[in-house]
Amino acid sequence: MPPRSPLAPDAFPELPVIGGARFAYVEAGVRYKNRPDVMLAVLDPGTVMTGVFTRSATRSACVLDCQRKITGDDGGKGAAILVNSGNSNAFTGRAGEDSVNAICKAVAEITGVPEYRVFTSSTGVIGERLPHDRITAKLAELKDKLSPNALPDAARAIMTTDTFPKAATAEIDVDGKTVRIAGIAKGSGMVAPDMATMLVYIFTDARIGRDALQSLVSEISDKTFNNITVDSDTSTSDTLLMAATGASGVDVTWNAEFTQALYDVMLDLAHQVVRDGEGATKFVTVHVTGAASDADARTHALSIANSPLVKTALAGEDPNWGRIVMAIGKSGARAERDLISIRFGEILVAEKGWVAQSYKEADGAGYFKSPEIDINVDLGIGEGMATVWTCDLTHGYISINADYRS
Amino acid sequence: MPPRSPLAPDAFPELPVIGGARFAYVEAGVRYKNRPDVMLAVLDPGTVMTGVFTRSATRSACVLDCQRKITGDDGGKGAAILVNSGNSNAFTGRAGEDSVNAICKAVAEITGVPEYRVFTSSTGVIGERLPHDRITAKLAELKDKLSPNALPDAARAIMTTDTFPKAATAEIDVDGKTVRIAGIAKGSGMVAPDMATMLVYIFTDARIGRDALQSLVSEISDKTFNNITVDSDTSTSDTLLMAATGASGVDVTWNAEFTQALYDVMLDLAHQVVRDGEGATKFVTVHVTGAASDADARTHALSIANSPLVKTALAGEDPNWGRIVMAIGKSGARAERDLISIRFGEILVAEKGWVAQSYKEADGAGYFKSPEIDINVDLGIGEGMATVWTCDLTHGYISINADYRS
Repeated sequence: MPPRSPLAPDAFPELPVIGGARFAYVEAGVRYKNRPDVMLAVLDPGTVMTGVFTRSATRSACVLDCQRKITGDDGGKGAAILVNSGNSNAFTGRAGEDSVNAICKAVAEITGVPEYRVFTSSTGVIGERLPHDRITAKLAELKDKLSPNALPDAARAIMTTDTFPKAATAEIDVDGKTVRIAGIAKGSGMVAPDMATMLVYIFTDARIGRDALQSLVSEISDKTFNNITVDSDTSTSDTLLMAATGASGVDVTWNAEFTQALYDVMLDLAHQVVRDGEGATKFVTVHVTGAASDADARTHALSIANSPLVKTALAGEDPNWGRIVMAIGKSGARAERDLISIRFGEILVAEKGWVAQSYKEADGAGYFKSPEIDINVDLGIGEGMATVWTCDLTHGYISINADYRS
Repeated sequence: MPPRSPLAPDAFPELPVIGGARFAYVEAGVRYKNRPDVMLAVLDPGTVMTGVFTRSATRSACVLDCQRKITGDDGGKGAAILVNSGNSNAFTGRAGEDSVNAICKAVAEITGVPEYRVFTSSTGVIGERLPHDRITAKLAELKDKLSPNALPDAARAIMTTDTFPKAATAEIDVDGKTVRIAGIAKGSGMVAPDMATMLVYIFTDARIGRDALQSLVSEISDKTFNNITVDSDTSTSDTLLMAATGASGVDVTWNAEFTQALYDVMLDLAHQVVRDGEGATKFVTVHVTGAASDADARTHALSIANSPLVKTALAGEDPNWGRIVMAIGKSGARAERDLISIRFGEILVAEKGWVAQSYKEADGAGYFKSPEIDINVDLGIGEGMATVWTCDLTHGYISINADYRS
């Protein structure tokens, strides 16, 4: 096990009970021994389910199954989510679908949730047959252990190369009633279909229609999870599922406070994934303004955040702004060399096509010693803006992905 | 100095004299001490000049100057190329243009070549004012040293983080007369605006019209230099200049043999750049067939070749075909999971959406021990194909770009 990321939060948050949701975890030995590797969530009837999924053309059997089910009629039924780590059941041909169907059928039987409302995720090695009988053999034990308090342990059961479990929570008050959100995530990058994939599960006791929740979740994903990158490699299994049980009795449709709270939870989880980026020693915010459009701003920000030369400069604490100029230049989005300005935090580094007169290399070097770095770029063209979060590229990344055989 | 790349060619080729072309080099101390850092090429009247340049939006002052001049009327005049290493004169604002103009004016005066036919390149650190007086102070010495035999030394003068000088040559026979091509290159990646940029200079004594040569050079660049990648980072200074002096008296317009010879020289130089990729230990050919179009094939091939997870698997000699599936999936170009087949060299690895029945992990692992690796992907959709060359991503890359301050 690699050591806990130096960028990890100080403590795991205290998660509230989400009415209408119960959780359990077991050691099923899918691949790992002596650690929890399967989690089950069971949601009460009336729960609204929404989700966003990887756009990979080679996505896994369980992602395809979730995508089919997420838009189906829920009939006011409950729902279940079963997740295993250790094996991603991706690129496993027809056998992959058979495994998904076998698990969904067995979960439906034991929980009473209809099969079309059972969602599964798998994360771990790719291309190996999922030994789904090891999972189904544990369903009775999982059912017995279901508890409203088991979400923190579920966060542990879905880890692969993660160095810390990830959770975030928020509460809002609506007319004297409390609405709660609690989410968990795993991921050591966007990244790695091999041993690290991004999975996110968020639960709330709010009452909200499916279309309203789906559009919220999609929109906020675009501003949070879709704007993080560890190494530019997109997983075959990325999945975010959100369940709204309605148990609070509070309708949050179009509630701005709920939107903000959900955004906070999702951003927090997204940041935790970056903070656990493989080998990461720097948490980096790339903020681009003044672009011709928001899309152009995001293209520039991702070009900077994914550049191996920018990422190695960050790792080396080298305030090498020339590499940022390079990444802007290569992105393909519109830029005018002499209108670009670059700031490290508050420090003006470059403007008018050259280094700023006020800039001192020592200031940049001092700033780059911080574990949290803001790279601010203004393109001086228009109103487009975007923020992307990333980490550095270190020997640790190479060690995790090259030195150890999977 | 890092050690010579393990992928370097056994020997530097013997370069022929190119009639109508003379070369010289000096130690000007632009940044490096005690090594040649400036080269001059002077081409006789009647020389045709063509070139291709980086598409970066933040390209350097000398690239912009070359682009303006390359399409101008040549008036049957001679030409000159002056290249310095150690400083890229990129993102240096108005001062950058002043340096280019000062150098071009001084070269024109001493060589008698008109200023509008003087082309310059600079490679090295970005954002620092080019001390062009150190270069112009050496022009008299350069002129005195001009010789038809100095091209090998010129190849050394343009090196930055390169671990070996790069050259390639070809000869063809046309109706009993010999036509010669000789080219030199530098580059330790596509890469790095910092201390490593790709520069290529090719000389021939062939006679050929400018439009014909320009379209040849552009077309072959698209199949050679534009299909190599070390780390996906595009330089602000990439430049390829080709000079045809006509001294052989042989017209090669539409000559298929000349086209092939030029392709061979350019591909050889492109491969040498990859073989000197920062930290490289593997030379990798990614060959994609069966795509919906050639453009789609190239998108998939580049997605594989640029994937940090594929590159670290190569570095670790881990035949991790799952990461190739991931890279195909994320590329954005068309793919159907169950039609993809993957081969390592001749070894069938995956097909029909899963690992091939005949595949043995030991075979893949054995193959990955080779320093030269072919990744062959067939998408089973159409006729599109592309080949891309790359190297692995190792601790050496991180050391060069993160551990040492520029």
